[in-house]
Amino acid sequence: MRSVNPTTGAAIGADFPRATRAELEALGDAAFDAVDFLADAPNAQIAGFLEDYAARIEADREGLAQLAHEETALPYAPRLSQVELNRTLFQLREAARVVQNDAWRLVARDDQSSLRMMHVPLGGAVVSIGPSNFPLAFNGVSGGDFCAAIAARNPVIAKAHPGHMNTTARLFEHCVAARDAAGLPKASVQLFFDCAPEDGEALLAHCGVAALGFTGSRAAGMRLKAVCDALGKPASCEMSSVNPVFVASHAGASRAASIADAWIASIVLGGGQFCTKPGVLLVAGERAAACVRERVAEVLSHAAPIVLLTASVRDHVHAAIEALRCKGAPSVVGCDRAAEWSSSGGFRCFPTVFSVDAAFARTHRDAVFTEAFGPLGVIVAVEGDAQLVDFARSLDGQLATTIVADDADATTRATLLSVLRFKAGRILDEAMPTGVAVSPAMVHGGPFPATNDPRFSAVGLPESAKRFTKLLCLDRVR
Amino acid sequence: MRSVNPTTGAAIGADFPRATRAELEALGDAAFDAVDFLADAPNAQIAGFLEDYAARIEADREGLAQLAHEETALPYAPRLSQVELNRTLFQLREAARVVQNDAWRLVARDDQSSLRMMHVPLGGAVVSIGPSNFPLAFNGVSGGDFCAAIAARNPVIAKAHPGHMNTTARLFEHCVAARDAAGLPKASVQLFFDCAPEDGEALLAHCGVAALGFTGSRAAGMRLKAVCDALGKPASCEMSSVNPVFVASHAGASRAASIADAWIASIVLGGGQFCTKPGVLLVAGERAAACVRERVAEVLSHAAPIVLLTASVRDHVHAAIEALRCKGAPSVVGCDRAAEWSSSGGFRCFPTVFSVDAAFARTHRDAVFTEAFGPLGVIVAVEGDAQLVDFARSLDGQLATTIVADDADATTRATLLSVLRFKAGRILDEAMPTGVAVSPAMVHGGPFPATNDPRFSAVGLPESAKRFTKLLCLDRVR
Repeated sequence: MRSVNPTTGAAIGADFPRATRAELEALGDAAFDAVDFLADAPNAQIAGFLEDYAARIEADREGLAQLAHEETALPYAPRLSQVELNRTLFQLREAARVVQNDAWRLVARDDQSSLRMMHVPLGGAVVSIGPSNFPLAFNGVSGGDFCAAIAARNPVIAKAHPGHMNTTARLFEHCVAARDAAGLPKASVQLFFDCAPEDGEALLAHCGVAALGFTGSRAAGMRLKAVCDALGKPASCEMSSVNPVFVASHAGASRAASIADAWIASIVLGGGQFCTKPGVLLVAGERAAACVRERVAEVLSHAAPIVLLTASVRDHVHAAIEALRCKGAPSVVGCDRAAEWSSSGGFRCFPTVFSVDAAFARTHRDAVFTEAFGPLGVIVAVEGDAQLVDFARSLDGQLATTIVADDADATTRATLLSVLRFKAGRILDEAMPTGVAVSPAMVHGGPFPATNDPRFSAVGLPESAKRFTKLLCLDRVR
Repeated sequence: MRSVNPTTGAAIGADFPRATRAELEALGDAAFDAVDFLADAPNAQIAGFLEDYAARIEADREGLAQLAHEETALPYAPRLSQVELNRTLFQLREAARVVQNDAWRLVARDDQSSLRMMHVPLGGAVVSIGPSNFPLAFNGVSGGDFCAAIAARNPVIAKAHPGHMNTTARLFEHCVAARDAAGLPKASVQLFFDCAPEDGEALLAHCGVAALGFTGSRAAGMRLKAVCDALGKPASCEMSSVNPVFVASHAGASRAASIADAWIASIVLGGGQFCTKPGVLLVAGERAAACVRERVAEVLSHAAPIVLLTASVRDHVHAAIEALRCKGAPSVVGCDRAAEWSSSGGFRCFPTVFSVDAAFARTHRDAVFTEAFGPLGVIVAVEGDAQLVDFARSLDGQLATTIVADDADATTRATLLSVLRFKAGRILDEAMPTGVAVSPAMVHGGPFPATNDPRFSAVGLPESAKRFTKLLCLDRVR
């Protein structure tokens, strides 16, 4: 298997092997070699590994960012070489910090009853499967799930995403160097590049594997979740979200153009390939919606095509656009240029926006409210604030959602807040949800089907480490 | 449906209806009426309800304990009227306390990034299904899951256990009186008495239901867990555990008789009908095992039969005894008296203990290491400490486990601790696991298949309330 340059469609870099069932089993077997070691190692040894790994990544900043840029077509600067790489470093160093100060253990004592409660590692490896869209900060071998799993002292078995295997291999070289320098067992971090789906499921069933950290598509997430559920193994699956933005009537009437500008910037950011992309903008009032449409047309009509991460992303966003077009969704921009996509050889898509009314959105709920990775957005023009609330009530679980409201919209805003608190892991006032700060108070999670469990967050320590722990009470233990 | 007096087998008390599918759907529909109210009510209103409910239970101490005694045959005093009733009161008052001080919200703030993270209710009802063995303290309408669900401000839809419907109905009367006195919506707490399994599954799928709290058999738990898993709804299922006790060689050699006494008391406590009953005693050294057997025979040979909770408990423990006998497990006591069980009309069982060697326990792992509710215990005589550790390594997930070791067993003890920390939710030194203190530092949980998720505890607040929450981040929300 080789990576593909998304700009040209040409294969690039090394040839990577697909792991066999036997090779995956060997990874599972080996994990046991690291379980006790990691559970018992001095804080400084694990923290030192994470710090050193971060330092090695930092020293290779340009090389890694360049490689990731070639494989993903994401901008070299500031996105990869600055923003994402710095986030990766920060996460690794945060993980080192919570290992060093034991914050992830969340100890509770009851001395009167001689009880000590704490979080401990799971006793097996965490299989860490990262997404296409963050080759560094959510990479299975360097990203958020990796940091959380190691912070909770679990071995990691990472799967490289086929979209950035060279970047992953290079990160893994740094990881291995840091691992060996720290004197950790080889099985502390293991990597494979791809496997047959049924072999991946067999790996999850291996007794050396205790949990799954997955970020990716709903289809893959649901399959892996079902395997873990049947086995009773904790899974953390971040799967899909449309992260709708609700624009109340007064806000829409008073400042539709600037709201549109913020939304447009957010849906094309990173090529629209963010799990927190606000794919649907619900606007109360037809005049406000018309103004948004006008602004969208003005800004995006002459936009250059965006190079997408992979052929699969292109195919999926194309299918989403086709689905809306076939159902008669009126296009605001981009739709008529779909034919131009494949002319270049790479994976391209013009920013595409539809605008539908409430009746259409209700009738074709799936087409409108299903995540489409890529620069696709849907405006839903609703009659007024009551309809806005109706849509909020019927929403599936989301990672994030935004309320845009003026002082005169106070009642609508309060009602939306009270509905959306049960629907999304994060609620924003005004701000678009694409920025996810790495903070102990962040929630990157949400009710099903955004994730498989609304009680956890994939970003922010120590919260995200909890996903990969078990609770233990030492009862009158000396 | 009527309850049965387990001592006589005669039907007692009121006739209770089986809920129809439509009635269950009405419970789900109604839940929405309470969701926002409970989420937004002043702390004092919810806490006041819990306090008042506790006071009403306390005022009816004798009546409730008497009713529970008639339906379960558990001792009136001290078990029901003192120990279990006091535990029930304590749990309700603890729940009131964490509502009053917001401890369950576990707020984290990041003022620099304007982020506030907190736990919030789930936005739907918690279906609360309690077990047979604690008619008060784990009752769906007054017990641990009820307290946890209400503490996290969720409506509750409770199912009465068929073994103590009259007790449940009487508890519910107090609950309704307290609910109405506090001005909470009727749908804050709803109760049904029984349903067809497929209708229960439909209730879990109802959009007004957000989560499940279940304590009971593995078979029922696995079925309900599968329903919740497919729907992405949080489930807390406490299912089964044999809670093995490991006796290291020096401890066995020096004090086998007193270890035996502690174990015997623990396996017959409450008729052996505790989820933390130590069903298996692994003893290193044949001489120590022989001494334990001798003591067991001495203490239990002339024991009176124990009245079990229900016909189903009797049938299951009978089947477990038969399974061991058919496989040739040597009986120490009780086995030969099985024929006497049914002579009385009630649900009886003589304390029964088998003693097997390591080879038998390995060959017939399922028969030895499967939970059998009732006064049944299995001694596993292993050759030495190495075999003890081998059995620890091959253990399934457990609620609790005990290590009995002398100073001279320090190495074995350390090895067992390091293996068992990944296998059980709670580890005890010396003490038998049947006592589960209600404390914020308690863990009543454990890896699958003891429960469905090793990251939670069903006992102790605020930890147990977390099971019935979602995480929410308010991001730059005024």
